[in-house]
Amino acid sequence: MKKNFYKYLSIFLAVALIVSLAYALVPSSKDVTQASSGNPKLKGSPKEEYYMVTFVSGIEYWKGCFKGMKAAADLYGVKAIYTGAPQFDVNQEVTVLRQVIAKKPAGILVTCANPDALKAPIDEAIKKGIPVITFDADSPKSNRYSVLETGNYNAGAMAARYLGKLLGGKGEVGISTVAAQLNHEQRKQGFIDTLKKEFPGIKVVAIVNDENDQTKAARQISAMLQAHPNIKGIFCTDALGGVGAATAIKEANKVGKVKIVSFDTDKGTLDLIKQGIIDASIAQGTWNMGFWGMTFLFYLKHGIVNPVDNWQKYGINPLPPYVDTGTMVVTKQNVDAFYKVNVIK
Amino acid sequence: MKKNFYKYLSIFLAVALIVSLAYALVPSSKDVTQASSGNPKLKGSPKEEYYMVTFVSGIEYWKGCFKGMKAAADLYGVKAIYTGAPQFDVNQEVTVLRQVIAKKPAGILVTCANPDALKAPIDEAIKKGIPVITFDADSPKSNRYSVLETGNYNAGAMAARYLGKLLGGKGEVGISTVAAQLNHEQRKQGFIDTLKKEFPGIKVVAIVNDENDQTKAARQISAMLQAHPNIKGIFCTDALGGVGAATAIKEANKVGKVKIVSFDTDKGTLDLIKQGIIDASIAQGTWNMGFWGMTFLFYLKHGIVNPVDNWQKYGINPLPPYVDTGTMVVTKQNVDAFYKVNVIK
Repeated sequence: MKKNFYKYLSIFLAVALIVSLAYALVPSSKDVTQASSGNPKLKGSPKEEYYMVTFVSGIEYWKGCFKGMKAAADLYGVKAIYTGAPQFDVNQEVTVLRQVIAKKPAGILVTCANPDALKAPIDEAIKKGIPVITFDADSPKSNRYSVLETGNYNAGAMAARYLGKLLGGKGEVGISTVAAQLNHEQRKQGFIDTLKKEFPGIKVVAIVNDENDQTKAARQISAMLQAHPNIKGIFCTDALGGVGAATAIKEANKVGKVKIVSFDTDKGTLDLIKQGIIDASIAQGTWNMGFWGMTFLFYLKHGIVNPVDNWQKYGINPLPPYVDTGTMVVTKQNVDAFYKVNVIK
Repeated sequence: MKKNFYKYLSIFLAVALIVSLAYALVPSSKDVTQASSGNPKLKGSPKEEYYMVTFVSGIEYWKGCFKGMKAAADLYGVKAIYTGAPQFDVNQEVTVLRQVIAKKPAGILVTCANPDALKAPIDEAIKKGIPVITFDADSPKSNRYSVLETGNYNAGAMAARYLGKLLGGKGEVGISTVAAQLNHEQRKQGFIDTLKKEFPGIKVVAIVNDENDQTKAARQISAMLQAHPNIKGIFCTDALGGVGAATAIKEANKVGKVKIVSFDTDKGTLDLIKQGIIDASIAQGTWNMGFWGMTFLFYLKHGIVNPVDNWQKYGINPLPPYVDTGTMVVTKQNVDAFYKVNVIK
């Protein structure tokens, strides 16, 4: 009996051993599925650090850009770090960028306070093998691989179409802008050209320079409304101009009588849209700038974009050089979503 | 003895069983590494089919586009399928596109023989939940998420800068183009404006319409060279114009005396660059159109681009609406690489 006990136990254990050895040595279908369900080429390391470098680094506008960058960095399993010059100071931004380059990061997204001043450090980084891509404000003469920005002329055209419909295609309008700054000039021109072509019944009767300053905008627009009492609409090419315009039409007791189409989606603007004082604002594709800028850097760094071997030698561009990240019209109907776009989860 | 044998065997088997059970049940570090080395969000299924739809589907130009699309499809583990209308026939292309939509593919890249005729089927596909992106030739009034194409005005400017330097900034030049076709008009205008601004010593003395026909181009350019014997350079906005120009300057015995800057990288053009008859050609970023178009479709289909929950409801654009895929100058120095860009591996 005892002899048989150990004999049967041995047989039982031997069978159990064979079964469990089979499990241990043959990869289960679950493991195989796991291994093949992931894409090894599109997975980075948390040690890989990508920087976003800005100027006036504290403003809300860049948060939407960085939110997109962070979404992409999380997707690829790498690290995104935000930094920049606190002031609108070109030399300060160059210093910050050089400090970032010294850390030998995996890649850099930079927006340029001045296109020419940033050229040297950008080219230096690329020479060291660090990919650089510009966003929002370009340095076109640098060797950056690509730029992702708003097509400002088209953004002005979009504003014209919205205001044009709102006014039923007729009446006088004014513009509040930042003089001699390229992106604002383009917005203004797109607005003027589109009205002329598509809404010939609307006349632009006044253009003021608000210098991207809320108080100056309010003062200038008040004066404009007094000089041109028939103005029925105002286009502001900058966010602070829009907030200033709201103050001016409240003071003139013309809320609802003078329509405002503004720019960007900072909290002040969104609140005024919710209150029905600003009718619409042109939102920029900030999330797309960050998301696709980061994606371009990752694909470049990992050698995934490879149109032909030795593309560097042959001068073949591995990335699209220009991306218009687009614009959207924010109104009372969709304003709630834009509070979320700029918030970093 | 025999009693002890089974006893010791049982002990041995029991220990072996415990060890092998441990292996079977606890995931090994190798499995963990494998699982974490892949990105599950960026891996599709070979059953996922993405289509490229073209017109004049047999020409070499689309091969570079499809090569980029296939590279991206391989990267994501999905299937890319090429199809199109054999002729330059808008109705035929609409029929082909509708046949593709009926197959309920995962996404479609389409180039439009006519922007308006393709609008209805594109919008129909998007309504059915099939993402559509246009490339090379857009349908701007359709609901396509994005367009990837050459910035044609800038391409003309690039040609002007190359020819301007080649001629040392002075002399007479001619243009051979396709009249009344938007992309060719833009190339021509970018060329003329840039010469005027940056090379005021160069005069455009003749413009001919080659109708994208090699024989007609040769005839027209021969006549141009006879009427303007001082012409030192020719810009051709289309590939067949360039090949025709080469014939004309050979016949006039002016090889090397009249510089040619052409467009595109079909084999005929590349061979003439190698022979030193065509001096340069403007290559379009066809690989980038296919690669990033396919990438946009995949990211959209897999819900990866997600600037805010319910972006559809709020009208927030999940993709950049416009991508300029860029241009490159092809010369004797880098011509070899361009034979490879258009060849599907």
